[in-house]
This record gives sequence, C-alpha cells and structure tokens, in this order.
Amino acid sequence: MSESQIKLYYKNATAELIGTEHGITPAQLKALAEETSPLISQLNNERKDGKTPYRDLPYSKEISQKVKGLVAELKDRCENLVVLGIGGSALGNIALQTALNPYMHNLDDTQHSSPRLFVFDNIDPVQFGLFLDWVSDRLDKTIFNVISKSGQTTETLSQFMIIRQLLLDKLGPEGLQNHVIITTDLTQGPLCKIAADAALRCLEVPQGVGGRFSVLSAVGLFGAAMCGVDIDSLLAGARDMDSRVSCEDFYKNPAAVNAAINYHFYNRGKKISVMMSYSFRLKDLADWYRQLWAESLGKAKDLTGDEVHIGPTPIKALGATDQHSQVQLYLEGPNDKLFTFLQVNNFDKKLKIGPAPDSAPELAFLAGKDLGTLLNNEKKATEYALLHCKRPCLTVVFDEVNAYTVGQFIYLYEVTTSFAGALFKIDTYNQPAVKFVREAIPALEGKSGCDEMGRKCEELAQQIQSLTKIDGDFLV
Amino acid sequence: MSESQIKLYYKNATAELIGTEHGITPAQLKALAEETSPLISQLNNERKDGKTPYRDLPYSKEISQKVKGLVAELKDRCENLVVLGIGGSALGNIALQTALNPYMHNLDDTQHSSPRLFVFDNIDPVQFGLFLDWVSDRLDKTIFNVISKSGQTTETLSQFMIIRQLLLDKLGPEGLQNHVIITTDLTQGPLCKIAADAALRCLEVPQGVGGRFSVLSAVGLFGAAMCGVDIDSLLAGARDMDSRVSCEDFYKNPAAVNAAINYHFYNRGKKISVMMSYSFRLKDLADWYRQLWAESLGKAKDLTGDEVHIGPTPIKALGATDQHSQVQLYLEGPNDKLFTFLQVNNFDKKLKIGPAPDSAPELAFLAGKDLGTLLNNEKKATEYALLHCKRPCLTVVFDEVNAYTVGQFIYLYEVTTSFAGALFKIDTYNQPAVKFVREAIPALEGKSGCDEMGRKCEELAQQIQSLTKIDGDFLV
Repeated sequence: MSESQIKLYYKNATAELIGTEHGITPAQLKALAEETSPLISQLNNERKDGKTPYRDLPYSKEISQKVKGLVAELKDRCENLVVLGIGGSALGNIALQTALNPYMHNLDDTQHSSPRLFVFDNIDPVQFGLFLDWVSDRLDKTIFNVISKSGQTTETLSQFMIIRQLLLDKLGPEGLQNHVIITTDLTQGPLCKIAADAALRCLEVPQGVGGRFSVLSAVGLFGAAMCGVDIDSLLAGARDMDSRVSCEDFYKNPAAVNAAINYHFYNRGKKISVMMSYSFRLKDLADWYRQLWAESLGKAKDLTGDEVHIGPTPIKALGATDQHSQVQLYLEGPNDKLFTFLQVNNFDKKLKIGPAPDSAPELAFLAGKDLGTLLNNEKKATEYALLHCKRPCLTVVFDEVNAYTVGQFIYLYEVTTSFAGALFKIDTYNQPAVKFVREAIPALEGKSGCDEMGRKCEELAQQIQSLTKIDGDFLV
Repeated sequence: MSESQIKLYYKNATAELIGTEHGITPAQLKALAEETSPLISQLNNERKDGKTPYRDLPYSKEISQKVKGLVAELKDRCENLVVLGIGGSALGNIALQTALNPYMHNLDDTQHSSPRLFVFDNIDPVQFGLFLDWVSDRLDKTIFNVISKSGQTTETLSQFMIIRQLLLDKLGPEGLQNHVIITTDLTQGPLCKIAADAALRCLEVPQGVGGRFSVLSAVGLFGAAMCGVDIDSLLAGARDMDSRVSCEDFYKNPAAVNAAINYHFYNRGKKISVMMSYSFRLKDLADWYRQLWAESLGKAKDLTGDEVHIGPTPIKALGATDQHSQVQLYLEGPNDKLFTFLQVNNFDKKLKIGPAPDSAPELAFLAGKDLGTLLNNEKKATEYALLHCKRPCLTVVFDEVNAYTVGQFIYLYEVTTSFAGALFKIDTYNQPAVKFVREAIPALEGKSGCDEMGRKCEELAQQIQSLTKIDGDFLV
C-alpha cells in the first residue's frame, strides 16, 4: 500500500521517559503483551463467527453501491442535507464532515457544489425551531436523512414527526417521499414500518452493528458521500488498518498495543483518558471516540456478572486552544490522566506569519514562520511539560488528513475498543443503562392506559416526578 | 428586583436521596457551613481591599460607556466581527454568543442587522486559512478584535501578524486603523505598543483581572454589544447575583453552598465535575466554566507551598445528546463524578410534535406534545437514573435564558470559584504551569542569540526536540 499510514507512538508513556512510578516498565509491557496476545486470535475468531459484523463493513460493495446510487439520484436537487439522529447516528457524520470538508463548507456555497450539512442530535426547541424557520423556505432543495437503528429513538422520532408534518403541509405526500431518506434496521421498529407505508427511500443499519460502530455503514457513508467525501478511499483506509489490527504479533498490532496501554493506566489510577487533537479537522473524531469509549467500556458488571463499575472517562480536548484552558490542570492537578495527542505532520494549507511591527521587535521570532509548524511546536511544548510532570502521553501521527487516514483512524479505535473490552472482561457492545433512561421517557410523556403496562408507567412517572421536583427545600 | 433569578438546587446531592455512602448527610452539611462561613467575610474583605477586582466589573459605567460608544461608531460598517483570542479572551465571547444570539445568526443575515461573529481561538492553518480566503473579499465590512491581556499571547499575536499584513496589503495603513480593535492591558506588552504606534482603537483589560474572570469587562462586552446583546441587562444580572453571593448567611449564599458541595465531593473521591446543560443556548457556558474551574483550581501547591496536586476535572456535557454517548458511563461506571445540570423552565420557542403516522400507533404518546417539555422530561429521566445509581446531582434552574439570567450565572460561577479556591487553600488566580508551556514556544520557534538567554533557548529547544521526536522505537 503506497498511501500513508497513521501510526501510534507510545514511548512517552514508558518509564524511560517519566519514571517507574508513572510510566510503563519493560517488564510491565511484556506482561501486557502476554495478557493481550491471546485476545488477538480470540477477536479474530469472534469476527469469523460473525459476532462483530462491524469489522466487515469496509468490505461491503453492496453498501457503498447503494449509497452512491442514492447520492447520484439526489445530489442535483439537494442544497441542504439535514441529518436527524443522536449518538451513534450523529457523531460519525459530524466527525467526517469536520475532518474531510472545508471549514467554511456551510457558509460559503460558492466554493463547492455539495449541499450544506446540518446534523441535529438534540431536541432543544429553540435551536431546532430557529432552524425550521430558516429551512421552511428551502424545503424544495432540502433532504432529511432520519437515522435510528432501533427505529424508535424518542428524540429522533420526535424531530421526524415535526419534519414529516411540515413536509406534508407544505409539499404533500410527494414531498415526504422526495425529501426523506430513512436509515434504520429494515427488519423491525416503527421507522421501518413508516417508511414502507409511505414508500420512503431507505438505507440499512446492518444487523448486529451497534450505533457507535456504524459510521462505516450507510449511517455515515451517505451524508459523507452527499457532501463530496471520497468514501472509497475512506473504506480503503479502514481495510488497510484491518490488516494491521488483525496481526497476531502484539508489538505490530496498533489496536492491541493501544488497548493494553489504556488498560494498564486505568488500572493504575489514571481513570481519565484525554484525547487532544492538534488539528481542527480531527477534533470531532475525538468526540466520536468519546461515545465509543464511554458507552463500550463504562459497565457495572463484568462478563461473569460481578459488580465492577469500571470505565475510563474520555475527554476531548483541542490544541492549542485548551493550553489556555485545561493544561494548567493537566500539568499540576492530580496525575490521573492518560493523554493521547492527534498530530498532523503536513497540513493542507501553508500560512505564513507576517512581519513584526517595528514597535514590537520582541515578536521578530515569529515573523515569516509557518503557522502549522507553530501549532506542532505548541504540541511539543505541551508534551514536554507533561513529561516533565510525569504524565503519560501517546500520539497518533497522521502524515496528512484525508479520507484514507481518517478511515484508518476510525477502524483503529473501533478495534482498540474491542480489545479494551476484552481486557476489562466486559460486554463491549451493549448499553443496558441507556435503555433504563429510555424507558422512563414514555412514562413521563404520559403513555398510560388501564392495562398493567399503563399502570406501571403512571407509577414510574409519579416516582420520577417526586424525586426530581424542585421545591423550596435545598433551593438557594 | 422583579426579574427572575437563577437558583441552585442541591437536595439530590444529599444522603436523603442517595444514601449516606455517597450523599451529603445533615451533619456533613453543617460542618461544611461552619468551614465555609468564615470565608464569606474573608472574600468580602479581600474584595474591599482590591484583591479581586473582577468582583466590581458589573458596576463600571466607564467600561460599558466606552464599549457602547465604540459599538455606535462601528456597527454600521461591520458585517463580520472577528475575535482573535484564546482561553479567557475567547470562551466568554463564544458563550455569550451561543446563549444570547439566535442559533442561525451567522448563516441567516436576513433576520438581524448585527454582524456575524467569528471567534478564532486556535492557530490551525487549515481552519484559519480557509476563513482568510473567505474574509479577504469582505475586509471592508469586517472588524477584527484582537484580545490578549498580556499583549504577547503567541497564538493571538501570530494571528494578528497575519491579519495585519493582509489589511496593510489590501487596504493600507488606514485599513489597519479602521478595521482593528485592540483589547489588552494598556500599561504593558507588545500589543499595547503596536496599538499606540499605529493609532489603533483600544479597549482595556482591567488591571488585576485574569483572562478567565474577564468576560464582564470589555473582553466580552464589546463582541456581545456589537452582536446585539443587551449588556446593561447582563451586568444588572451580575449585580443581582453579587448581592446574593456576598450574603454572610451560608445557607442563603448560592456561591458558598455550591463551592462547599463541590469541595465536599472532591474530597470524597468524586474528582470529576460534569456540567450537563439541557439547553443548547447554555452549552458554551459549560465550556467557559470548564476553563474557569480547571485553571483556577488545578494547582500543584497550596498557599503554604506544600505539594498537593489537587483540582477537579471539569467536563462539559449536553442533554439530551449525551444521553446517547456518556450516560451509560455516568450510570454504571465508577461513582467518581458530581453532576450539575443546567435546566430551563421556559424555552423561548414552543414546538409541537406532529401526529403519529397511522402505521406507527406506538408513537401516539408523543403526538402533539411540546418539544421543550420532552427535553425537560429527558433531564428528569436521566437524573432519576443517576439517583437510582447513587450519583449526586445539582441543578441550576433558569426560569428563562436571557441576558439577565446569563449575567447571574457568570457571576455565580466566578464567585463559586473564589470560594472553592479558598476552601482548597490554593491561589485561585494564578496559572504557573501555563507559563511553563508558553516559555517553551519561543525556544522551539528559534528565538536565539549569543547572549545567555539565547543560549538557554537553544538548549531548551534541543531538549524538547529530543524528548518529543517520534522515531522508529515504540512506533506501531
């Protein structure tokens, strides 16, 4: 493969750099290799047995052909693509957009022929309402992509029920058909039934692929392709990484090494995992990672059913910005964090700092310098300071940011998550507690009835209302 | 005062709700009151002695008149206001914009006569370069507000040196004078000299007010006023809160209670502080808080010089969005977090969910419901689940979001931070480690010379380069 590969660099997490109290010693690394190595073949076997279908997404010609066909059909009449989704249905779309489309994409439509992209992953009435005011006059050039794996996500369905009525009112049943794409599990759920009944265009969330592992399915590919991202290259990058993260030699497997190091530090009191991108384009990949890591690894019970309450807390940060916000804490606060930098060696744009004004000769050291070099020097300065304070650092190095390297990154972190889950001996792919919240909503929204379920709902709603009621006591 | 006041609600952090292992017992609250009460008069005295000048910003007629005068002068010829700043020079501006201007402000200029606002708090060459391409054709209608308290922030000065050259090239020396506003300490620093030499318009960062406490000075007020925010009401809200947070009765002082509760939980292993806004408009106030809290409280040494390495790690989160990203971890992971919800009782916009399609009668419970009520029910459901899992929760309640309540919030958290610093017995107002990073940059950018300082720079640069060099070992 001649195209560039992203690399994981972990020397600055070792005892050689930060001492034996906080860094990984050679003996510890060896023990990690021994603990993790059997998991490589275990994961490879689980994949062969069809237990982790997300692993095969980059190979699906069917998905990319379906997506491309739909893009070809819709692109010319779409100036605004609006994604309605939440969690895994939104974060991948946002990350791909920030990484692979120009910064001014939405504001400056003279520079490209792709639609603007809006992703609504919330139900704030003010935010969504003000957007509706704007889009109502532009419905004929707008496509809504409604994404929900289960087909019954309350937030997304609520948005859809608003948009559906708007389209019916303004454009009639044909408007609904022409301006809505449904992405869901095609075998079950209300959204699937609605789509069939109204003859809406559909894309599939493949069976067995959870939301947070779905960005390389139609969930992420459709929006990306609509906005001009080279999805073939994205998938090729993921396949490139697949060959590396399937490698049975621990020391050559970046996902195994990455997971093992994260596992090691979590077990030694560094329960916070900061991903700090020194690239604006990569910043929302850190947000995508935040869900992947938190929802996959934050679990009350291990696989034997014992209560363990484990899970690193992921934090997204942005360099150089957060040097003036978080780095004071990172350097001097508790030594309870593992840092992962995202670094770009070659930025797409060169920008030269102008000359120093005569009145400020002390700025001459900046004059004529390259802004990207300065940004990378800021990363070095921060890393140096962290090492000085004995805080472990990893770096994921991108030679450049493009669809191919972003595809690698996504696949690397998905498989890293699988390894981490196996090391922690938990179920990586479920999210039992989210369901717990989800079930409370219908009760609070007044889903009732005289059957047993209706009565249970009413009881639950009363209980919640009394617990969360804000009254005079303890109000200051 | 007839206008509404924000309130802090803390019952759901007490043992009554979540048990004695994780909640505050009445005895503990009493002890906290005893420990914190003397600090109220201590802080009030420090203020009288001029040690915390940020406390008096809301009373300065001079600042608001200067700001309003400048706005009146510039507003008609400004379609784009570009803030160049980082950390405390940016986060307040961003927070005020998100809270108090419409969501589509920048994209939809048919709805208002205020300028678009862009805040650049980074030096990413791709992001900034693409913006420059766009703004270069619009310089005659653009104002750049360059904000740096020290007048020598590397990132901001680098941006300014690029913009300065662009303006000189395109519009000449008059262009510089007409399109740049400098906000800085007027007594020192390169920016102040540059401004004097080139006769640029200036605003002041008041003496003794650190960046993260400066949003209610010209730093935040100018951008807000330019974009149409009612700064009188913002300041009036802050004054309203001032009367409450100066109150010597602990139980009636929301800043004292807030700080004491945060202090309590930090000392009992809940070292992560999550601020989760259930309002899009308030989300960037959580980001502003993230700097205020981290930089003020993350300290290696206490006031006696002992090494303590303390500091809660603040996290910003957004409801309902993060229910599908972080809440699984929050509920089932380690019980190491204190949650602070931001809740809005009355949203500015009502949005009704449409009818359920015939094919999906199971959605009928949502039909016709109000989206804001649903969002608040999502908060209740999440809080209920957290309480069930014995996780402590606070809520800051806004009757509505407007300049008056936002002013209260800012002042509440500034003073809460002062109380927390006093409880932790640290210097709340310095940031020694940030300076450590800052000094490494000139070295890496090749500031050198044959004097002692030049040699030191070269030595430091070599040391950093060798530590942070990414080579073959440990690269996978």
